[in-house]
Amino acid sequence: MNAIIISVGDELTSGQTIETNSAHLARRLAGVGIVTSAKWTVGDDREAIASAIAAAAKAADLVIVTGGLGPTADDLTRQGLADAMGTELILDAGRLAEIEDFFRRRGRTMAPANRLQAMVPAGAELLSNKLGTAPGIAARVGGRPVFALPGVPHEMEWMFDAVVAPRLGRNAGVVLYHALHAFGQGESDIASLIADLMDRSRNPSVGTTVASGLVTLRITSRGRSGQEARKGIETTVREIRSRLGTMVVGEGEQTVASVVGELLRRNRQTLAVAESCTGGMIAEMITAVPGSSDYFLGGVVAYADRVKTQLLSAPRELLDSHGAVSEEAAIAMATGCKALLNSDWAIGVTGIAGPSGGSEEKPVGLVCIALAGPSGTASHRHVFPGDRSTIRLRASLAGLNHLRLALLGGTAPRR
Amino acid sequence: MNAIIISVGDELTSGQTIETNSAHLARRLAGVGIVTSAKWTVGDDREAIASAIAAAAKAADLVIVTGGLGPTADDLTRQGLADAMGTELILDAGRLAEIEDFFRRRGRTMAPANRLQAMVPAGAELLSNKLGTAPGIAARVGGRPVFALPGVPHEMEWMFDAVVAPRLGRNAGVVLYHALHAFGQGESDIASLIADLMDRSRNPSVGTTVASGLVTLRITSRGRSGQEARKGIETTVREIRSRLGTMVVGEGEQTVASVVGELLRRNRQTLAVAESCTGGMIAEMITAVPGSSDYFLGGVVAYADRVKTQLLSAPRELLDSHGAVSEEAAIAMATGCKALLNSDWAIGVTGIAGPSGGSEEKPVGLVCIALAGPSGTASHRHVFPGDRSTIRLRASLAGLNHLRLALLGGTAPRR
Repeated sequence: MNAIIISVGDELTSGQTIETNSAHLARRLAGVGIVTSAKWTVGDDREAIASAIAAAAKAADLVIVTGGLGPTADDLTRQGLADAMGTELILDAGRLAEIEDFFRRRGRTMAPANRLQAMVPAGAELLSNKLGTAPGIAARVGGRPVFALPGVPHEMEWMFDAVVAPRLGRNAGVVLYHALHAFGQGESDIASLIADLMDRSRNPSVGTTVASGLVTLRITSRGRSGQEARKGIETTVREIRSRLGTMVVGEGEQTVASVVGELLRRNRQTLAVAESCTGGMIAEMITAVPGSSDYFLGGVVAYADRVKTQLLSAPRELLDSHGAVSEEAAIAMATGCKALLNSDWAIGVTGIAGPSGGSEEKPVGLVCIALAGPSGTASHRHVFPGDRSTIRLRASLAGLNHLRLALLGGTAPRR
Repeated sequence: MNAIIISVGDELTSGQTIETNSAHLARRLAGVGIVTSAKWTVGDDREAIASAIAAAAKAADLVIVTGGLGPTADDLTRQGLADAMGTELILDAGRLAEIEDFFRRRGRTMAPANRLQAMVPAGAELLSNKLGTAPGIAARVGGRPVFALPGVPHEMEWMFDAVVAPRLGRNAGVVLYHALHAFGQGESDIASLIADLMDRSRNPSVGTTVASGLVTLRITSRGRSGQEARKGIETTVREIRSRLGTMVVGEGEQTVASVVGELLRRNRQTLAVAESCTGGMIAEMITAVPGSSDYFLGGVVAYADRVKTQLLSAPRELLDSHGAVSEEAAIAMATGCKALLNSDWAIGVTGIAGPSGGSEEKPVGLVCIALAGPSGTASHRHVFPGDRSTIRLRASLAGLNHLRLALLGGTAPRR
């Protein structure tokens, strides 16, 4: 069974508001075994709403519309739905009394405009809204169920869970989603390692996306029961992990920083960071994880060279001979930071984030990362593509990933 | 002239990812006088992509597709577009050489899968992507222009501005958007100061949104010419600035950090930061601005108390008597950091970001911020609502904002 979600509102088509209702609904629909095949956004336009509903009821088994049920002149979902049904709006006297009562209980007088919210397409049913004055509507268009829900997110969420979901019942099966995050190779290289799992007809299926510098593998598992779908997820996770090995950074809500934190906590070890081009981003990522004070001592943002020499004891001659952006400088920063804060591990990062400051020998995107640990130091030289923010993000993730691999006892890939 | 935007991706239809590309595109299209009449989201399904493109090219003057141009098996926009055009994919040898070169310059070998990215529907044109390997495509379906752009937001944004917008030309009338960013009061308080400007029938109209801790006032100005629309923007900006005063942090792409940077550069002064609960976020925001090395020396992330005493010379007795989260501790951190790095200004921040660690006297959300400057110190005590990441974000913005107000010669609001 599949669904199309229609979001209504000029603020959505114009891009003034980011539309989030449909993402919530799609996840909820998946929980009752319904796949969302498409999402459509239309403006506050009666004809556009009507033709979208009519087309959706032809293309999908279920249609959910959000928005356009308020009391003002630009709320046109009622009329659009009536047009798609080929009927007229009629007044629901019982519902009118309810709305009048809603205002009376709040010591207010109902504005005449609110009368519109007691109007319903003939043959459709109003759905009570416990959280506001805009009722929902349950209807059928061409034999297919159509639900119109308010656009205010918490009203829409409540109405879907309390009123709509129970009417959908259980369909043939359950759809579960799960995400694995990988780092260390490009999207296409990673995809080539799991090409057979990405076959579109496979169940579970696997898709890849790139977000915040990580390649995320999204597993979609269909089953007749939650248990069956979960089993599909587990099998596929195992298969992906066996092929990608330590390239898999984490799952679900895990981040590179949270995984590094778990490893450090398990080892009862501490971490400090010395950052130049990433300017505090690595420390920020680490401390975004609740409880990071268990293992993170702090760090030095050594933006000016003077801070590198003075606080981190990087020798002036070393910076002069190799340059502040060099593996030698990164090692000096990491070892200096480790000694300064007396930590078990320290990351040192120096690079050229751009847009200016690059040269032929040392281009924008060059980042040197060093790791000082209990048994010595290691350094890596990367050239990251992209703009300033991308380079800083990739450098931060790479720094954390070198540490993750070292904590796992592996070696960091040099890219 | 109107447009339909099609976003492609299973991660979008399933609700795993919130779709934001279409909002960006709709705003940009409005800037060249094109109204977005609908947005459609479809999954990674060749047939669904093809029929959406075909239907959109019937319903709108312009079609923009984002996503599905990557190198993997679930990237099907190329094929869908070819189907909608009624043609086949052919290899663009010149483009293949470019992609091979992209990898070669980074010292990597092109995966065979990337060959797919040099395929183009016969009769269509590949659009260069300066920021990645996925080129865009310019085509015509039923006589209407169709542009397919990569799904990665910064690549999509660059390609629209650099390649697509110049081809669209000017249409009848111009809609311009402009944003002002305010900080220091809540959204409704700020809205009440400009209620008349927010009238929906006014031109220019003003709407408010809250994003990344700032209240953004979005001005929409319609005019017969760019000049007329621009004039409306300018008049409204002046009016808002006269009412909100120093609450207006900046405009357009400006951030609190970039404005602070401009003021420091103008004063030829330098800055250092000492961060505890914000864990590097303030330094990260400052160094996100290109050229920040002109005024930013660096900082200390003093997460463990030992770092506060040892590096920042905060007296142990002071931390014991007042607590590490106190205005006294923040002042000691700021003055210690200013002395350590020999800067003109230093910000010191200490607080409880949660979720644990709060008490009745010192709740989660308590953040103490101190400023050490050329003529003395000042400190502020805030209690921010929200979760860990919101508290850290607001604390970082508040720290930068205190400095901004001090640099402007005003006083920082105490909230």
